[in-house]
Amino acid sequence: MLNSHLSKPLCIGLVGAGRIGKVHAQSLQRAGATIAMIADPFGDVAEMVAAQFGIARWTKDACELFRDPEIDAVLICSPTHSHDKHAEQIIEAAENKKHIFCEKPVDLELDVVNKVIKATDDAGVKLMIGFNRRFDTNFVRIKQAIDHDEIGKINMLRITSRDPGPPSVSYIKSSGGLFRDMTIHDFDMARFLVGDEVDEVYAMAQSVNPDIAAVGDIDTAVVLLKFRNGVICYIENSREAAYGYDQRVEVLGAKGSVACDNKHSNQVVVSTNESVRRDLPLHFFLERYMDAYVAEMEAFIRVCTTDGVSVPVSGADGREALLLALAANKSLAENRPVKVDELRQLS
Amino acid sequence: MLNSHLSKPLCIGLVGAGRIGKVHAQSLQRAGATIAMIADPFGDVAEMVAAQFGIARWTKDACELFRDPEIDAVLICSPTHSHDKHAEQIIEAAENKKHIFCEKPVDLELDVVNKVIKATDDAGVKLMIGFNRRFDTNFVRIKQAIDHDEIGKINMLRITSRDPGPPSVSYIKSSGGLFRDMTIHDFDMARFLVGDEVDEVYAMAQSVNPDIAAVGDIDTAVVLLKFRNGVICYIENSREAAYGYDQRVEVLGAKGSVACDNKHSNQVVVSTNESVRRDLPLHFFLERYMDAYVAEMEAFIRVCTTDGVSVPVSGADGREALLLALAANKSLAENRPVKVDELRQLS
Amino acid sequence: MLNSHLSKPLCIGLVGAGRIGKVHAQSLQRAGATIAMIADPFGDVAEMVAAQFGIARWTKDACELFRDPEIDAVLICSPTHSHDKHAEQIIEAAENKKHIFCEKPVDLELDVVNKVIKATDDAGVKLMIGFNRRFDTNFVRIKQAIDHDEIGKINMLRITSRDPGPPSVSYIKSSGGLFRDMTIHDFDMARFLVGDEVDEVYAMAQSVNPDIAAVGDIDTAVVLLKFRNGVICYIENSREAAYGYDQRVEVLGAKGSVACDNKHSNQVVVSTNESVRRDLPLHFFLERYMDAYVAEMEAFIRVCTTDGVSVPVSGADGREALLLALAANKSLAENRPVKVDELRQLS
Amino acid sequence: MLNSHLSKPLCIGLVGAGRIGKVHAQSLQRAGATIAMIADPFGDVAEMVAAQFGIARWTKDACELFRDPEIDAVLICSPTHSHDKHAEQIIEAAENKKHIFCEKPVDLELDVVNKVIKATDDAGVKLMIGFNRRFDTNFVRIKQAIDHDEIGKINMLRITSRDPGPPSVSYIKSSGGLFRDMTIHDFDMARFLVGDEVDEVYAMAQSVNPDIAAVGDIDTAVVLLKFRNGVICYIENSREAAYGYDQRVEVLGAKGSVACDNKHSNQVVVSTNESVRRDLPLHFFLERYMDAYVAEMEAFIRVCTTDGVSVPVSGADGREALLLALAANKSLAENRPVKVDELRQLS
Repeated sequence: MLNSHLSKPLCIGLVGAGRIGKVHAQSLQRAGATIAMIADPFGDVAEMVAAQFGIARWTKDACELFRDPEIDAVLICSPTHSHDKHAEQIIEAAENKKHIFCEKPVDLELDVVNKVIKATDDAGVKLMIGFNRRFDTNFVRIKQAIDHDEIGKINMLRITSRDPGPPSVSYIKSSGGLFRDMTIHDFDMARFLVGDEVDEVYAMAQSVNPDIAAVGDIDTAVVLLKFRNGVICYIENSREAAYGYDQRVEVLGAKGSVACDNKHSNQVVVSTNESVRRDLPLHFFLERYMDAYVAEMEAFIRVCTTDGVSVPVSGADGREALLLALAANKSLAENRPVKVDELRQLS
Repeated sequence: MLNSHLSKPLCIGLVGAGRIGKVHAQSLQRAGATIAMIADPFGDVAEMVAAQFGIARWTKDACELFRDPEIDAVLICSPTHSHDKHAEQIIEAAENKKHIFCEKPVDLELDVVNKVIKATDDAGVKLMIGFNRRFDTNFVRIKQAIDHDEIGKINMLRITSRDPGPPSVSYIKSSGGLFRDMTIHDFDMARFLVGDEVDEVYAMAQSVNPDIAAVGDIDTAVVLLKFRNGVICYIENSREAAYGYDQRVEVLGAKGSVACDNKHSNQVVVSTNESVRRDLPLHFFLERYMDAYVAEMEAFIRVCTTDGVSVPVSGADGREALLLALAANKSLAENRPVKVDELRQLS
Repeated sequence: MLNSHLSKPLCIGLVGAGRIGKVHAQSLQRAGATIAMIADPFGDVAEMVAAQFGIARWTKDACELFRDPEIDAVLICSPTHSHDKHAEQIIEAAENKKHIFCEKPVDLELDVVNKVIKATDDAGVKLMIGFNRRFDTNFVRIKQAIDHDEIGKINMLRITSRDPGPPSVSYIKSSGGLFRDMTIHDFDMARFLVGDEVDEVYAMAQSVNPDIAAVGDIDTAVVLLKFRNGVICYIENSREAAYGYDQRVEVLGAKGSVACDNKHSNQVVVSTNESVRRDLPLHFFLERYMDAYVAEMEAFIRVCTTDGVSVPVSGADGREALLLALAANKSLAENRPVKVDELRQLS
Repeated sequence: MLNSHLSKPLCIGLVGAGRIGKVHAQSLQRAGATIAMIADPFGDVAEMVAAQFGIARWTKDACELFRDPEIDAVLICSPTHSHDKHAEQIIEAAENKKHIFCEKPVDLELDVVNKVIKATDDAGVKLMIGFNRRFDTNFVRIKQAIDHDEIGKINMLRITSRDPGPPSVSYIKSSGGLFRDMTIHDFDMARFLVGDEVDEVYAMAQSVNPDIAAVGDIDTAVVLLKFRNGVICYIENSREAAYGYDQRVEVLGAKGSVACDNKHSNQVVVSTNESVRRDLPLHFFLERYMDAYVAEMEAFIRVCTTDGVSVPVSGADGREALLLALAANKSLAENRPVKVDELRQLS
């Protein structure tokens, strides 16, 4: 018999057919959503990815997608080199009454971010920012340990975040620098776990890689955050960890600590006359956060399809993380602790 | 533009809309295959699962599915209480020239299994048995360590296999007993890793659970296997591990050992004034082997769609595992080591 | 001022200045005991070890030591090649009213062991056997978990016991074979942890090393023990683990499991682009059980100096372990499960 | 025969019969040294400890000990509340040509430390400071990994150092504050591992415990060190970790990382239906560093008895660690990064 039960799921438009666009396409499939259209300025790429994921329509023009009446919600995954377009795409989508998921960064400048937030508020659409780590089982479990009082009141927090290797110099030049490109995820994680805002920021850094130094960026840094409630957070970043992606958190509370180790593809240990060893951790964010991306898309679908569900990572969350990155930049430039309010008042 | 690239993937029919049927439906989706029809004697269940997974057609009559010309390959996932039908369903499917994936057990009796193998051989279709653990990243990595000579020639092998709790007594009564129902996976794992056949079997067991004892079965056992090449394997089973599913392997070779620990949903450690603890391992096979099921389906699709690809778990593999289970039963009944050839010659 | 508080501790005589004799000398020092005399047929060795450990007197003749009135208790640590003298030395010491600590084995033959036990009973002296593993912090903690009902009633027990490499063939020839030389420690551990006696034994083994095969011994074995209370124990031995000494235990109970990993000299992990690795476990028994030897000596001193303290590892414990080794030998020779009572009745 | 080989070992005088004095007494015994005399202003305690460790003589007057011609070297382990006497005791001992081992801190003031170093230099005696962690197997192994180029050039370093609970408020009041009392060990560890001097220090801290706040000290802190060679080090301290003593180090280099976990008394894991757990780490420094104390004493004996052996932890090392503590204090007071040279020039 024919199956007459196929109900109409949320209808999504995907902007960007690059690496992260494909990750979200796959995640949306696993989450059971339908992608109606994909847009990418490179039409052949759009067509190929459409074929790969069974997406019915493709276009070179994102505006066509934003204006399509069939589409309920859009994912903005434009490639990094065009992130200056994220803001205008969000505004365009908002004006067409689409709910919006946007990969970080919304923008590198605070006033643009403020404009974007105002546009989505005015349009009454939902805006969710792609801080995917909030959906990782390790960090969700750590948040739960805090919320369920398994470790008592928090006093200190460490976030270790290291990439397996640096991106290209051309990427780095347009990235906004380490703090806005990479640490921004850690700033969000710190706020997510502590549940309060930061008062003061101090950053210490160096450039181990001469190519990165040459373009005026850093690749090795520790950033200290003093939260308003007294919690001290230290984030440490490196662009290059030879053993692969390293994403760990450790929280010390009055009644104990909670910490996570990295994820590995297997739990196998090989013992020989030389060592007791295991394989490297999952190599980079695509491997490490594959399941987190699915959970993130499930959350976005829930936000778009259920009344009264608040956005788990809002535009305001994006702005706060950016503020911390700007404060870290200022701290580094002036070699002094910087109050976040110094920057907040400027905006 | 309309997407004109959607090529026709392998067209699959799914027999059985129960727990494992749904697992495979999900895995096939993730593996990118199309399920054209689902069959289950309970029509409403078939219809509901069809709706859930976007399967176009459903039927109460598996024969309708076997005879459908659109379908290239079938998955036989009939519920356990009807496994006496697995064999006739395979034969029916083979006569209709479908490739077949069959959940274990093909049958509890050796002569029936032989008949099934002959039928698929005669029809020239491929038969793959659902020993899903061969596709788990841990066991694949252990096999790789052996094959790549990381630990030298194998001398000993331990397989730990414990369920989080016993199934219902009614299930146990029709299961064929611990060795044919549960240990059969471990027998297959032993053969997979050692790459040789077993010469002799000795089993020691007890029934901790009085309900299981009452129906004449055991729940706690150690089975020793002496392989023809001298390797000693010990399998240990329990129907009840309070902490959850426990699936580990350890191999000792001339140059070292390789072993795996269980998989956990997270890598979080909570330290308090009482203990340093982590959450329990993934609770049971659905959680533990979710990714292995996807890899298994990918392998089956490859087998069906690529010329010359041999079946990774053949009917003969199913028969050998059953032989070991029968030898273990005989060893337990007569309290003596049993040569596998004693049983091989009977069949 | 002069220190007038130095009280007279237990006065000990040490028989044997070889490797294990020196271990006990060091342990006794750390335990705060005084060794008054050392005996070894190689006088120069005795003199050298006496110098090393500040032992006041030495002799080539153990009988001189046994008859010395100053001495309260003796340690019999004669080298392995002369273990046929352990029994007569114990009897001589008992007749001289010394308490006795004897390294395993007391003897390879059951009737000799019975004679020794009778002699110490008749003399009213205490006899303690050197099953040092009972004093290891890991195994003590596992025993505690069982005794304090952390894991409920025991159902299964695994003992892994592997040496880093085989002893010389000449040692093996006079060792009594794998089960009486090496597994005997594991037999004792099984009885210690289960707290019951064994009903039946089955052994499966092979000789990986041709030199060991040539002298009729085995080097790789699994021994199954069925305890009277139903518990199933499997012991697995290898003479050669490339990564070093491997001494682990895992117990499955109704409410959970308790298991231990090996001990390492450090907790350091090195991560490179090849692996995440740590150094090998402590290489052999001298390193692994250094602290256990001290705790063992402390227990012996307590036994000798405190009224009413029962011997933690008695002559009867030594006899039972030997019985299990003899049963394993018989099982291997006849390839059948052997009731321990078959051997008990012979003695 | 009588043992005529007992040679005269190094003859040591021990000043202080408190907790750490007893630790060193025990360590010296295990290291095979002779303690000739013990001094403590509480004569009964001196007498009791002399009895416990077989020390021939005791005195209430440390000067008697310093002037004793039999004594080659002294250990200064005066209780913390009298650390203001460490300096004058060292000077007194130096004038009497004794080699000196002094527990930290030599003094809380830089000019006093300078005077002490000058006195020992002038007298030509050796001065070793009690930074015991340099002798811990974990930190020795990490140093080795660095020195043997297992992880390439160092870029970042984390030192985690947490106590199981705060000392008494009266202790804290005379301790010199967290940085001079507790972090000073971590400052030394940082210099030990990096092998260079620090250029700049920044400290962020809070007082979680109101009693500690009330006496003007802090209990939770992160200190950043920028080394002259560019290495960034972050030290994190807490006076109260509910799960016990926490002493870990992690180093990131160009070719990988090296890190250590805490030490535990056993390697036992208990798995129930609630968690997979192990016992707490070794509770505090006496348990954790027991073996390090022995290695430290062995090093001191070697320094005193062997010509040309340089002191592994010199007076200059003690001074540098104090400088870093003073810089951290200044950074905290003025909430700015502080150049170490600012303080160096003052002294």
